Amino acid sequence: MKVAIFLYEGMTTLDAIGPYEVLAQLPGAEIHFVARRRGPVRVDTGVLELVAAHALEDVTAADVLIVPGGPGDEAVRTDARQLDWIRALHATTTWTTSVCTGSLILGAAGLLRGLPATTYWARLETLREYGAEPTLERVVEAGRIVTAAGVSSGIDMALRLVQRMAGDDVAQAIQLGIEYDPQPPFDAGSPAKAPAHVVAMVRQVIETLGESRRTARRTA
Amino acid sequence: MKVAIFLYEGMTTLDAIGPYEVLAQLPGAEIHFVARRRGPVRVDTGVLELVAAHALEDVTAADVLIVPGGPGDEAVRTDARQLDWIRALHATTTWTTSVCTGSLILGAAGLLRGLPATTYWARLETLREYGAEPTLERVVEAGRIVTAAGVSSGIDMALRLVQRMAGDDVAQAIQLGIEYDPQPPFDAGSPAKAPAHVVAMVRQVIETLGESRRTARRTA
Repeated sequence: MKVAIFLYEGMTTLDAIGPYEVLAQLPGAEIHFVARRRGPVRVDTGVLELVAAHALEDVTAADVLIVPGGPGDEAVRTDARQLDWIRALHATTTWTTSVCTGSLILGAAGLLRGLPATTYWARLETLREYGAEPTLERVVEAGRIVTAAGVSSGIDMALRLVQRMAGDDVAQAIQLGIEYDPQPPFDAGSPAKAPAHVVAMVRQVIETLGESRRTARRTA
Repeated sequence: MKVAIFLYEGMTTLDAIGPYEVLAQLPGAEIHFVARRRGPVRVDTGVLELVAAHALEDVTAADVLIVPGGPGDEAVRTDARQLDWIRALHATTTWTTSVCTGSLILGAAGLLRGLPATTYWARLETLREYGAEPTLERVVEAGRIVTAAGVSSGIDMALRLVQRMAGDDVAQAIQLGIEYDPQPPFDAGSPAKAPAHVVAMVRQVIETLGESRRTARRTA
């Protein structure tokens, strides 16, 4: 069972590491971290690099593909080589999956046309640009394409994948193995649950960050 | 606000990346990944390296210290240089924290004597070797030392830290920022909640892995 986890500059680390930590415990799973080129990949905050053990051309098939999100998704969505690789790998997978704005990358690769899908809550409408139907659920299955909501949702998505692939006992064993018994101090993890002023605050931050990135590109 | 995240060979990735992803969103926080030496650090599964941007000697003070767990904890617990660094950094922190068996490292550094603490559920009794009182809670605060349970618990721990440092609104904003609205397919994340046969299965795997590591050391 070969799992390919796609890495790229500006990705959000937990998007990839959540599902990785779940699937790495699946008996028989071989995890391959794959990027445009082998070597260090700088994540969105700029303070950490993850080392991709494999370049795109080294990995031509996989049972599971995981595409994380992050502000770097924009550059990937216009890069023919990386989109070609995602399409080619998808032709070989049992499950093609994404976390957060990773679904926008799947969309840009043309894989979401006519399908229900999810992404980061603040980016849901962008899915329409790729012909997908934005769906406010934490994990959305559309045949063999599974999209998950923002950042931390990849843990839930991967546990569901394990359940499908290996059954309830193994999924529960892995949940216990990573002691995933969530107890956040608040119940504020979705825009429907967080206080309105907190949602407004986060929207403001996201818009400001988006604007500063657009400015940086214009002046680059 | 300086956050030092300690990395070491054989650590469990999510132990570090969970709290990292939360604290990286705290306004004013500067995250420093620190290891014995600068450069790639191979994690427990062997398939991924995280790049430490800083060596121990580069980071002599921090507001927050995070010590992750993982099977590599054993080697750290007998390494005077790394334990000295943890003790020295602790003398400068507002919060000294651990995830999973990271608390055993804090214990080996002599920081847990007489304190309540937690760790990975299957390793709780080991805390007694360091004079700590094993405590079956997801996050245990003992003054400025905060220990968290297994692997995924660092997300909850870090959100609680943010609440203490920056208040409820910021903690909720970050929870929404990482869309942490957990929906695992089962409620099996602790030995009290998982079915008995699943707990037995995981205990068996842990014991087998522990035995094979002991054998590897004897024959190394």
